[in-house]
Parts: sequence; C-alpha cells; structure tokens
Amino acid sequence: MKIKLISFDVWGTLLNLDLMITSFINSLNELIGEDASIGVMEVRERIKELRRKFELKPGKDFESSQELLAEKLNTEIDVIKRAAAKATLKIDESIVIGGADQVLRFVEENGLKSIIIGNVMFWPSSYTRLILERFGLAEYIGRQYYSDEVEAYKPMKEIFLKPLSEFGMNPSEAVHVGDSFFEDFQGALNAGLHAVLISRRSKPEILHERGFVIEDIRELITLLKREF
Amino acid sequence: MKIKLISFDVWGTLLNLDLMITSFINSLNELIGEDASIGVMEVRERIKELRRKFELKPGKDFESSQELLAEKLNTEIDVIKRAAAKATLKIDESIVIGGADQVLRFVEENGLKSIIIGNVMFWPSSYTRLILERFGLAEYIGRQYYSDEVEAYKPMKEIFLKPLSEFGMNPSEAVHVGDSFFEDFQGALNAGLHAVLISRRSKPEILHERGFVIEDIRELITLLKREF
Repeated sequence: MKIKLISFDVWGTLLNLDLMITSFINSLNELIGEDASIGVMEVRERIKELRRKFELKPGKDFESSQELLAEKLNTEIDVIKRAAAKATLKIDESIVIGGADQVLRFVEENGLKSIIIGNVMFWPSSYTRLILERFGLAEYIGRQYYSDEVEAYKPMKEIFLKPLSEFGMNPSEAVHVGDSFFEDFQGALNAGLHAVLISRRSKPEILHERGFVIEDIRELITLLKREF
Repeated sequence: MKIKLISFDVWGTLLNLDLMITSFINSLNELIGEDASIGVMEVRERIKELRRKFELKPGKDFESSQELLAEKLNTEIDVIKRAAAKATLKIDESIVIGGADQVLRFVEENGLKSIIIGNVMFWPSSYTRLILERFGLAEYIGRQYYSDEVEAYKPMKEIFLKPLSEFGMNPSEAVHVGDSFFEDFQGALNAGLHAVLISRRSKPEILHERGFVIEDIRELITLLKREF
C-alpha cells in the first residue's frame, strides 16, 4: 500500500452520533424540564454553517457551541456541561458503529497508523476519548486531534496537515475517512489527502481522483486493498 | 446565617484524591509498561510549587501538567490523556469522601448556594464533572469553576472573586472549604472569604478571624451552625 496513515472522523464514522445527540437531548430535557431538541438542532446547524464559512474562531468552536446553546435554551453553561456528562454516562456499547473495530484492527494488522481528526460540539473531546477508551477502540488509535485542543477545525487545512507534519508524511500518503461532505471529504481533498466519504445517499463511485464514496465503514477494507 | 455561599474544593475535599491518583498511576503503568508513580509525584509537587509562586500561566495549568508529565515519563501526551480516561472509567463510588453528600444536602436544605472552585491537574475538569454527576453530587452544586476553564487557579484571588462577582456577593458572605493550606485556605483568606481547612494534622481551632480548621467534612455542619 502506498498509504501510510488513515485518519478517521469520530462521530458518525466510528461512533453513532444520533444515539449520542439523543442521549444529550434527553439529559437536557431532564435538567431544564422542557424539550431541548429544536434548540440543539438549530445550534448544530448554525455551528456547521459557521465552520463551512470558516467564521468560527479556531480553538473556540466547542466553547461557542456550549455558549450558543445555553443562550438558545435560556439556561446556564453549567447545565449544558451537566447534560454532556449525563449523556456520556448513559450511552452503552451500541454507540460503536458496526464494523468500526474490525476496520481499526485491519488497519493495525496492515502496519498502517490510525489517527482521529474530529470536530467538537456540545461535549468536550475528553468525553469522546473516554468513550473510545471504554469500548475498546482507543487501543488501535495513535494520536487524536480535536478542534478543542488544536487551533483548527475541519474543514480547515491546518487540522489535516498538523498530524502529517508531526509524522513527517506527505498528504498523498494519508487518507481521511468521514461522513461529512464539507468537513471531512472536501476538507481532506483540499488539504491534498485522499478522502473517503461514508454516505448512504451516494452510490459508491470515484468522485475525484483522490476521493471515494462508500456506504458502510466495513467497505473501507475492500477499498484499501483495491485502491491503495 | 450571614453566609450565603459555600464554595468547595473537589479533590481531597469531596472526592478521594489518593484513590484517583492511584487509578491514574495504575493506568499509566499499564500503558507505558513501567512504574510511573515517582514521575507523577514529582510533576505534582512541581505544579503545586509553581502555583504557590504564581508562576503558572493562568488557564494553562492543566495543559502544563500533562506536558510536564509526558516529558518526565518520556511518552506522548495522548498516552497521558488515555490514562486519564482509563482512571476515570475505573473508579467506583468509594471515590466519594464519607459525609460529602450529607454536607451538600445540609447546605441545600439551609438555602445556601454550593459551588465548586477547583484546580486541575493530569485529568481535565470535564472528568471531575462526570464523576460528580455519576455519584449524585452534581445535583446539589450550582456553578463549577475550574482552573482549566477560568483564566485563574487557586490560590489566585481572581478564581475566588469571579463567582462572587457573578452572584453579586461580598467576600464576607462566602466560605471556601478545602484541604490545601496554600491553595484553599490561604487563597480564600487572601481574597477576603471565610475559609475552612480540612486537615487531620491540625487540631480544630480558630486560626484567623475568618479561618477555621476541621478534621472531617462532616464537622462543617456543626461549624456552620455555630459560626455563621
């Protein structure tokens, strides 16, 4: 394989975002005594829009999301933080997307490095690290890069290039895998990496000389064998 | 009571620091395959010394502790972060110091506000929040102020005065309770608050017109009834 490094998005790629968001909304509902779901979804769309336009302050996207949500729900940031803790405590192993461990094991067995490049919203990256540790995925992963610890977020080039510079690799030696068209796929392609989009909406086909689409993370194994 | 606000230190006061440090060291030992205990203790003493001399950069004390420890153990920061996650996952309810819930309940029943003012080292405040949530203490606590989220650490005056200014209170309307002589007791007294030191080494006595020493957190109930 000419590829040396596989970078994974976390939420929606290795871990089930819908389950976590549901757990987070249920925790908020308990704490504030009313339905938080519309507020959460509106703030989520807003943050994603600001990222797409590069209008969020690097290193502050996580804090902005908690502040915007507290404002939207007319509550305190401490309540948002309590809901994040409660959500993290409530989830179980169904949070791991089917095939994620198998893919990480394949990558390790083939002598490739696995890293995480993740954006952070509503709950800190420390909780994502805890969940990856709890369900046994962390042991397959080398370094983890998150937007609340690195001064950059996806789709900014910087967050894709930082690990490459640390490992002394060229962008063409890495492939980034994720489920967001703008943040993962476009971001990685713009930074010069190969990119794999996981999407049930598009048919598997080559979209770009460095870009591929698969429907399920398990297909990454076949793709890696065939293309890299 | 003339007191309106009780501020608690967390580690050593509400939660058992020795158990958490042991869990953290055991997790490090597993990950690096050698004994990390001396390194952890040396970095801990160094950080405490830097805080005492106000030589740590406010808002960066937590990151400095992880960086110094990674350097001392000749490992990567991601390994330190994994050990912090593992330690948080491993602890059980024995982490709650006997009487802590009873004291928090007493404070709530008497119409006083409880807050946390905590320094952060090795694991982020988000893990402390998670533990307080998991073992049922968070529901008695209003806002939580930690040195990795606020641009100040104990014994700096600013971290004691920030909540007071948010609540529109005078320092004399608050008492801070903690187990560190420099960070909690001296820090709170210097900021003009009342202070209670929990220490098995000193006998209970009045040390300062605003300072008291108790041996066990349960004695806070009697002290609050008698003095405030």
